[in-house]
Amino acid sequence: MTSSPDQSPVITLLTDFGIDDAYVGIMKGVVLGINARARLVDLTHSIPPQEVMRAALALRSAVEFFPPGTIHVAVVDPGVGSDRRPLLLRTERACFVGPDNGVLVAAARRIGKPKAYVLENSRYFRPTISQTFHGRDIFAPVAAHLSLGVEPADVGRETSSFVHLDLPEVTIVPEGIQGEVIYVDRFGNLITNIERTALDRFPGPSLSVSIGSMAVTGPVQSYAAVDEGTALALIGSWGVLEIAIRNGDAARDLGMKVGAPVTVTRDLQA
Amino acid sequence: MTSSPDQSPVITLLTDFGIDDAYVGIMKGVVLGINARARLVDLTHSIPPQEVMRAALALRSAVEFFPPGTIHVAVVDPGVGSDRRPLLLRTERACFVGPDNGVLVAAARRIGKPKAYVLENSRYFRPTISQTFHGRDIFAPVAAHLSLGVEPADVGRETSSFVHLDLPEVTIVPEGIQGEVIYVDRFGNLITNIERTALDRFPGPSLSVSIGSMAVTGPVQSYAAVDEGTALALIGSWGVLEIAIRNGDAARDLGMKVGAPVTVTRDLQA
Amino acid sequence: MTSSPDQSPVITLLTDFGIDDAYVGIMKGVVLGINARARLVDLTHSIPPQEVMRAALALRSAVEFFPPGTIHVAVVDPGVGSDRRPLLLRTERACFVGPDNGVLVAAARRIGKPKAYVLENSRYFRPTISQTFHGRDIFAPVAAHLSLGVEPADVGRETSSFVHLDLPEVTIVPEGIQGEVIYVDRFGNLITNIERTALDRFPGPSLSVSIGSMAVTGPVQSYAAVDEGTALALIGSWGVLEIAIRNGDAARDLGMKVGAPVTVTRDLQA
Repeated sequence: MTSSPDQSPVITLLTDFGIDDAYVGIMKGVVLGINARARLVDLTHSIPPQEVMRAALALRSAVEFFPPGTIHVAVVDPGVGSDRRPLLLRTERACFVGPDNGVLVAAARRIGKPKAYVLENSRYFRPTISQTFHGRDIFAPVAAHLSLGVEPADVGRETSSFVHLDLPEVTIVPEGIQGEVIYVDRFGNLITNIERTALDRFPGPSLSVSIGSMAVTGPVQSYAAVDEGTALALIGSWGVLEIAIRNGDAARDLGMKVGAPVTVTRDLQA
Repeated sequence: MTSSPDQSPVITLLTDFGIDDAYVGIMKGVVLGINARARLVDLTHSIPPQEVMRAALALRSAVEFFPPGTIHVAVVDPGVGSDRRPLLLRTERACFVGPDNGVLVAAARRIGKPKAYVLENSRYFRPTISQTFHGRDIFAPVAAHLSLGVEPADVGRETSSFVHLDLPEVTIVPEGIQGEVIYVDRFGNLITNIERTALDRFPGPSLSVSIGSMAVTGPVQSYAAVDEGTALALIGSWGVLEIAIRNGDAARDLGMKVGAPVTVTRDLQA
Repeated sequence: MTSSPDQSPVITLLTDFGIDDAYVGIMKGVVLGINARARLVDLTHSIPPQEVMRAALALRSAVEFFPPGTIHVAVVDPGVGSDRRPLLLRTERACFVGPDNGVLVAAARRIGKPKAYVLENSRYFRPTISQTFHGRDIFAPVAAHLSLGVEPADVGRETSSFVHLDLPEVTIVPEGIQGEVIYVDRFGNLITNIERTALDRFPGPSLSVSIGSMAVTGPVQSYAAVDEGTALALIGSWGVLEIAIRNGDAARDLGMKVGAPVTVTRDLQA
């Protein structure tokens, strides 16, 4: 990561803190006390408490849309106060700061090949470290110092081992693809783990998609390709196969959630 | 619109994306990747999915309080991926970017006489345009380029036709005014379509206000003019007649919602 | 308060406006129209309508983490439109702007000995003052002018009398401490009024903590000191005694809320 010349890079925040308390604001106060020029962007603070996988996926969905030099802070941290380590991942384009529990990894890999550092140099932490709020005491101040141009190697010790988080993988067979729902968004859209590249192995117009035992229309190009209320499959804004209902809520109306199996099959009649 | 000399104008965002996913943060990442000096302000992201009218009213309520040169982005977009056009409205004071479904019009008219442009110059879009997330791929990057001083005429083609959204109108007769509730806010205040100027046609102290078949106190000058728990009518912060309960929730306690009829009548005994 | 040399100090906002309407965004528009360089940070807008005590505690929890020169605006204002006065508190480190109903006091005292001013100089207000939204018409513009270096004495008249808000106090006896829950956070952690300094009067390893009639483990050093699902007491991120359940929700699972009695007793066997 190269710090931007005017030392005003973007720092994103993603937590499970919610927005009803002042915790997120406190992290921003800590950042701005170190670098008044930092540009803070909230990704989301609505991760259900301690759902590391959902946090990892939300962060991964966002990173490619931020400018080079962005520093991403993710604090979903059930292990705070234990011996879980504070971590920094660095790629060519971005830095990632948070607990070593897997929350950072999928996002860092999305945009590069990360180097990892265990945060050790307490000079870049707050003077007093609580056992319950490392977002405030370690991760926010480290991100702020990185935004001023401090080098990752000054903040921590490079390490080759860090916690990975295994995203569920798809199975590809000659007949098609077996995947699953990995994320449900605010609209009830069912985001799957079936990448566009997997679909591209089955070219031609004749694919069928089902979720659970239910067939849906598509893959189509856009919601507008079907009537309102119709369940459809398309490559959505995440760049993966998504099951949606046009102007409806697929999760609710189909009764589906994370883990629901999604199948893409080659149409035999074709 | 004149871009501010330091190229750091305000860009507001209003969507129905909620705050549980990273979608709003992603739009901010796109903006800051184009103009790192943009000042982003959230209006609200809690518009119920695809309620264009509520979005239009929320945007209209805000525009007069932003500085000249502000760029407003509104993405409540049930027609994304169809042939609905991406639109830019420009007044002397501000630009408005979003889908051509009416969401921008009431706000633009509140502060001027808008010129309209169909967004066509893909040079100012993201390189790849999804069929599902034009907020990220078209509206955010266009707003960011406008904030750098790009002229509306460079971004789109001027048009005289765009989608209007008819706000409900009041009926004024010699006996008084018949209007309705058009927006319910977080406090349960019932915002009506009865403007202060309509009330001014009935000068003097002797007006009566009712909602549905229920009379309320007022019009009064402030909540404090009545006891706690009392239903009242006043010109509220929107500059229109509003039905409220002092330190209470009028929508809940009176059982009223958008569309409820509100009547102002001249008191015959006066 | 000394204004920062580049006139871009932090302005925090804390309200009971929620995030579903544009009210908070409108306050930001007013601020940025006066000082385009202000750095706006949301503390929270989820205070339940008119809960002044909760607002005061949330603000108090945050102030020490913001840089010198920060201006804090708090608008939880059941008396708007009555004769309650608009207030400015000033300490060496920060300014506080809001209604004179106690919401500012605990926070100002946390970081200094405040001087108080009644806001009177309408030159620093919006031209028209509504009777219902002083956050927009008085508090936001005053905060913005302060951020430009306007002196408190120019904005208001110094006063020695302002409304205080009595936080519940602990009782300390030779056998221990009797306190209570004063705030429940998003995780269900039960924040008490028992300060670390009170606990320090009872040194040694042998203290017992109970909430209601239920004993909990601790005080411990961190959540990680107990098994998942175990109720514990620790000095949390607020710097006070807190009752929590490791990776659980203490408020829900113990059935406790604000006002629940919390007792720390010296263990006689020790």
